[in-house]
Amino acid sequence: MLQKQKLFIIKIGGNVVDNEVALHAFLKIFSAISDACILIHGGGKIATSIGNKLNIESKYIDGRRITDDDTIDLVTMVYGGLVNKKIVTVLQALNCNAIGLTGADANVIPAVKRPVKTIDYGWVGDITADHINTDKLGLFLANGLVPVFAPLTHDGQGHVLNTNADTIASSLAVALSAIYDVRLIYCFERKGVLENVDDDASVIRLINNEKYAQLKTENKLFAGILPKLDNAFAAIAAGVNEVLIGDANDLVRNTTGDTIGTLITK
Amino acid sequence: MLQKQKLFIIKIGGNVVDNEVALHAFLKIFSAISDACILIHGGGKIATSIGNKLNIESKYIDGRRITDDDTIDLVTMVYGGLVNKKIVTVLQALNCNAIGLTGADANVIPAVKRPVKTIDYGWVGDITADHINTDKLGLFLANGLVPVFAPLTHDGQGHVLNTNADTIASSLAVALSAIYDVRLIYCFERKGVLENVDDDASVIRLINNEKYAQLKTENKLFAGILPKLDNAFAAIAAGVNEVLIGDANDLVRNTTGDTIGTLITK
Repeated sequence: MLQKQKLFIIKIGGNVVDNEVALHAFLKIFSAISDACILIHGGGKIATSIGNKLNIESKYIDGRRITDDDTIDLVTMVYGGLVNKKIVTVLQALNCNAIGLTGADANVIPAVKRPVKTIDYGWVGDITADHINTDKLGLFLANGLVPVFAPLTHDGQGHVLNTNADTIASSLAVALSAIYDVRLIYCFERKGVLENVDDDASVIRLINNEKYAQLKTENKLFAGILPKLDNAFAAIAAGVNEVLIGDANDLVRNTTGDTIGTLITK
Repeated sequence: MLQKQKLFIIKIGGNVVDNEVALHAFLKIFSAISDACILIHGGGKIATSIGNKLNIESKYIDGRRITDDDTIDLVTMVYGGLVNKKIVTVLQALNCNAIGLTGADANVIPAVKRPVKTIDYGWVGDITADHINTDKLGLFLANGLVPVFAPLTHDGQGHVLNTNADTIASSLAVALSAIYDVRLIYCFERKGVLENVDDDASVIRLINNEKYAQLKTENKLFAGILPKLDNAFAAIAAGVNEVLIGDANDLVRNTTGDTIGTLITK
């Protein structure tokens, strides 16, 4: 069997996107990766700040934004326009042939509006990896393009949907694992998963299923990291080769064999 | 020689983009075109309206927007995000596989920041047809995608540039005429170029160089149409097969041999 080509799917969070200096530093590092890459970004704080000026109130339930009519227009502008096109334009200046996308563009990520149970989240999209159109993504990657995703999808009925960037990253990773050797990288405000939350030098370099069970039994992990690790192991179980959690500044090392963050494998 | 494939490059103006009902009606017609298509849109009034709420003053000199730092962010949001992604999402619902682009995406339209002579237009881009990257556009078209352009380009140095939509349309038409049989269509608030400005039935159905010279000599054209016709003949001189000026509602007829607007040819 032919060896699959390496693909890095990299998600950057608010700590990188919301800070222009950090973002430019990150994009410089990102643009130097020679393997195939996909970038997924957020932009929540910028949306909140512009929303405040437009008198669009940011409403959250359990940490999730409620996306009413005004809010979907706001995030379509900010994520799909301001943040996405700025990133693409800076990457182009760094000789990285970026193409900005939402899930609606080329119908790459069709989604379903989240059904209302106890909470009406509004124009929020749920996606599954098996609906992702890997043919068009594969076409872009094969032609040297670097897809840059805003966290937006669509419902196939004419509506943009606000969609969690972590979920877009893991769904893309699962879907593209059929054709690529995928490493999914979550850039994070720490060096990796820490054994001691106060000590950046205590990064746990490798976590497999067995180690994860052991860490949970020993109660060694700080609470906030558990959902991230559960998501990572779900992606691994669904076919992703490796997930890495690490600092955006360590991206160069973390796209090599000699990683410096926390590498998660079977 | 093989016959070139037909390509329609269609520019819609403010009268279509700024009115949600008119826009949806237009997109329904547009989505039914079976030949290869590219759409270019504006969005000036929506940008002005959101800019007013954000206290970003819209400044014009000789009818052209002055694009300062705040304004380029505003139009990047509105043209590249809000308007572009709404159009793409509605087209997807109509089974038209649209992909939203600015000139920065895939580096399709590199531009030069307009040099300051007597007026500083700010972050405004000037483009020439010979810089357009037709290889990536050809790739998208050959794979059934319908590019939808916001009127934005980039300077290759990390800046988005505000760029006239008519100019983007004609430059794309000229550049793509090397590989396609291009009809450039300017959608317009009238049925076409009128012999009598008060009579929609007086459309001049065909204007070639000879007829144009004659119309100018006879002083038969209303002043506003002259720059449009000059641009059309410049595109024809640069290799575009046909330019059509007509009503957005007549798009079906105007993408056939039996046109109803004003067809401009050599």
